Amino acid sequence: MTRGPIRIAELAERLGGRPVEGDPDFAIQGVGSLEEGGPADLGFLRSATFAGALEEARIGALIAPPDVDVGGRPVIRSSMPNLDFARAAALIAPMPHPQPGVHPSAFVDPTAKVDPEASIGVQVSVGARTEIGPRTVLHPNVTVCDDVRVGADCLFHPGVVVRERCAIGDRVILQPGVSIGGDGFGYEFNERGEHEKVPQLGNVVLEDDVEIGANSTVDRARLGTTRIERGVKIDNLVQVGHNCVIGAHSAVVAQAGLGGSTLVGSRVFIMAQAGSAGHLTIGDGCFVAGRAGITKDLPPGSRVWGFPAVPEHRWHRSTVLVRRLPELFSRLRALERHLGLRPEGRRPRDE
Amino acid sequence: MTRGPIRIAELAERLGGRPVEGDPDFAIQGVGSLEEGGPADLGFLRSATFAGALEEARIGALIAPPDVDVGGRPVIRSSMPNLDFARAAALIAPMPHPQPGVHPSAFVDPTAKVDPEASIGVQVSVGARTEIGPRTVLHPNVTVCDDVRVGADCLFHPGVVVRERCAIGDRVILQPGVSIGGDGFGYEFNERGEHEKVPQLGNVVLEDDVEIGANSTVDRARLGTTRIERGVKIDNLVQVGHNCVIGAHSAVVAQAGLGGSTLVGSRVFIMAQAGSAGHLTIGDGCFVAGRAGITKDLPPGSRVWGFPAVPEHRWHRSTVLVRRLPELFSRLRALERHLGLRPEGRRPRDE
Amino acid sequence: MTRGPIRIAELAERLGGRPVEGDPDFAIQGVGSLEEGGPADLGFLRSATFAGALEEARIGALIAPPDVDVGGRPVIRSSMPNLDFARAAALIAPMPHPQPGVHPSAFVDPTAKVDPEASIGVQVSVGARTEIGPRTVLHPNVTVCDDVRVGADCLFHPGVVVRERCAIGDRVILQPGVSIGGDGFGYEFNERGEHEKVPQLGNVVLEDDVEIGANSTVDRARLGTTRIERGVKIDNLVQVGHNCVIGAHSAVVAQAGLGGSTLVGSRVFIMAQAGSAGHLTIGDGCFVAGRAGITKDLPPGSRVWGFPAVPEHRWHRSTVLVRRLPELFSRLRALERHLGLRPEGRRPRDE
Repeated sequence: MTRGPIRIAELAERLGGRPVEGDPDFAIQGVGSLEEGGPADLGFLRSATFAGALEEARIGALIAPPDVDVGGRPVIRSSMPNLDFARAAALIAPMPHPQPGVHPSAFVDPTAKVDPEASIGVQVSVGARTEIGPRTVLHPNVTVCDDVRVGADCLFHPGVVVRERCAIGDRVILQPGVSIGGDGFGYEFNERGEHEKVPQLGNVVLEDDVEIGANSTVDRARLGTTRIERGVKIDNLVQVGHNCVIGAHSAVVAQAGLGGSTLVGSRVFIMAQAGSAGHLTIGDGCFVAGRAGITKDLPPGSRVWGFPAVPEHRWHRSTVLVRRLPELFSRLRALERHLGLRPEGRRPRDE
Repeated sequence: MTRGPIRIAELAERLGGRPVEGDPDFAIQGVGSLEEGGPADLGFLRSATFAGALEEARIGALIAPPDVDVGGRPVIRSSMPNLDFARAAALIAPMPHPQPGVHPSAFVDPTAKVDPEASIGVQVSVGARTEIGPRTVLHPNVTVCDDVRVGADCLFHPGVVVRERCAIGDRVILQPGVSIGGDGFGYEFNERGEHEKVPQLGNVVLEDDVEIGANSTVDRARLGTTRIERGVKIDNLVQVGHNCVIGAHSAVVAQAGLGGSTLVGSRVFIMAQAGSAGHLTIGDGCFVAGRAGITKDLPPGSRVWGFPAVPEHRWHRSTVLVRRLPELFSRLRALERHLGLRPEGRRPRDE
Repeated sequence: MTRGPIRIAELAERLGGRPVEGDPDFAIQGVGSLEEGGPADLGFLRSATFAGALEEARIGALIAPPDVDVGGRPVIRSSMPNLDFARAAALIAPMPHPQPGVHPSAFVDPTAKVDPEASIGVQVSVGARTEIGPRTVLHPNVTVCDDVRVGADCLFHPGVVVRERCAIGDRVILQPGVSIGGDGFGYEFNERGEHEKVPQLGNVVLEDDVEIGANSTVDRARLGTTRIERGVKIDNLVQVGHNCVIGAHSAVVAQAGLGGSTLVGSRVFIMAQAGSAGHLTIGDGCFVAGRAGITKDLPPGSRVWGFPAVPEHRWHRSTVLVRRLPELFSRLRALERHLGLRPEGRRPRDE
């Protein structure tokens, strides 16, 4: 990571005027972890707990909480060292931005409107009447179908597909292979008891600052809109069914799935491999643990675990008590013997 | 949604001669939900239960069951309002069909046979000796490899991959990013105890009217064929292992997975995030609940839940009783005290 | 499957000099299963257990363990019939290898170095400064971004994406739609309590002989490297989070997921739909059962089941005892009645 150098004092200034200790002219060349970073790299210390790792670290400079000993290294003091480090990394090692313009191998429908500052990459396809905003980057082999509106400063990685009539806000990031606007899973039984497709006539809206992970899928609404609100972050291989709404600033971790018409509030966490049956409401601020399965509405602020999902303490208690079932059987058997209700003898299988 | 208009009387006729009440000349412009549809849209009422929603609805016309009050709106009466609405939607707001022909940016191998009525989109790749049937649409960035046969009226959305020697029936729909014919997960341990790849020499057959959801994967057979029979519907991010057979008119919901050589009967439902170990048989008409994990063969008509999957009533009972474990421990402790087998005192941790 | 023929004696020689019984000049035309193979096909018998299937089989020749009766067919005797059959299949029915060279529809950046023996397929995109090794095949619509190094004899199926700065060893196979190097799921809360993206500056390294299944995703490291070591095999729709390390010769089955910074030892099996929370260590030689959920470090050689994952025998015992909960409640009730602690009467709901 060497796109610098930048003086540590200048960096501290750009982070909002943080105080610097040690040589203000220390030249930061890159960023690194405590384990792997070198003497010209900037690292960070999340809290005093991790300070032990500094003894063997070769890292040259740090962002660290106030008052934590950093072994004499140049240091930017911050009460949010992890956040400031993220911002520092974006300044020191920025993503290279491709040239604006349309690559000759790309196809842009003549009726599409591509902002002159946008970058349309190798073998991209942009459909009829579609609009691509300023500074948006479409990497190779991206497909944006007809009548889509993509805002400014978006980044679509290779292999992304956005189907017709979807709308994408500003600063939206789609990792490789994301599918936006596939048909929802909607069928009706016909006269022969066979599945007959219900046309999926709605669309998907991704609001500003949404990011979606590799190969995740967000289905279009049957009618109306599947909506991912502002600032939502979705990890890899997540399924979002038709007509879902995910409220602002929520996060959905890898391989979780939301059945059709799930309404998720804002600032919710849905952890990895969790799932929700369809037509449920998950209130604002809920926490759904990894692998939990939601089967009924959750009031705001719920914290649930397990399947069917129950409040955290109940799940922990059940888990512990299930492990104590052998003891329970054995105590019960002792009682029965004490009362002469059960002959002495071989312990039954499985107890 | 405005591709109409169509007279409600004409629509009723095309739905098989359904009776109309109210103005037969009412001009339907589009379709809509009860919540969002406007005065020129057609909606539907699934049953009398939902009639309350009509009070505030702006929807102009309806398909509704006989005898349900629709507030004086023009109405098509139907005993299957949801199915008739699906068909009406396909008539009123049909998917636009791209022009037939091969886009100049597409590559079609000279030995391939593409029907003149087929549409081969932007940057599509069609392999050697592959056949594409009439009216089939390949959207941008689709790859169909060598020696594949694709039938008539299929629809492959962007980013779909069909690997060599697979066979696709008529009216098959593949959503974005579907992978058909990837190698099965097959290895043997070699002399050094390392995984050595077993060539995956079989193929995949998708019969007529199959639909597969975004980013789902169907692996080719080791030898022979992985077969998805007529009318099967598969949702997003589903895994179908090598040599599986899924019987006609079954449905597999999002993120479910079938291990290699699973034989699924016809008209089976496998719900979201369920899974089956390999080499099992799931009989005709089974229902596998969401998140269930199948570990043994299921006779026809089974309804199973949980992991390891058990019949529905047993799973519900276990679930309830596990929640009552704290009570069980406390009743047992009371008995022990009653008999003087356990001293009074602090309640043990976790009870 | 007819790419042969090959004499059975010659095949036996090429498998390392295995003994042949029956006609050494028998001409093998293809390979087949016991169920479907024909009289010119070679099949195999895994062990004597399966010999019953031979009675109805039309298969012409076999690889079989010593001393098992094969009904007089020409036979190659082997103590590893399944492994030898896999190798025989690769000899008899080899994957066709595309012509070397760059297809005219592909885009190769002028600064990339593509070995003259490599095959760059239809509409492939190869980024700046990227290197593609000898005999490596990139199938249609593959995207390899900037500054990637791909070794020799790799095979990338259609739709694969490898993002910038990743490094791929020799003989690596990526099935359709695989995403290598997508951004890890990394955010920090900012001053407004919103998720702010942490730049993902690391990369992914896939060592020699790795294979990854369709639509699986391996995220790049935040800093440093996400590493899949030599000989690891990953199935379809698997998620590997940022900064994971998977040790040599391990296997991860379909739809499993590893949270960020999971360290998996060598020769580990992680079965289908299993998951691991992040920042855990799974020791060498562990076996993680299907659908298991790992919540703490596992010492080498552990075999775990269930969620939260526990040792195999404990999980089986718990599973059995949970099913016996109705009996437990009923025995407890009997005791209570015996002691006069509970009135006779209606059985409570749910027992």
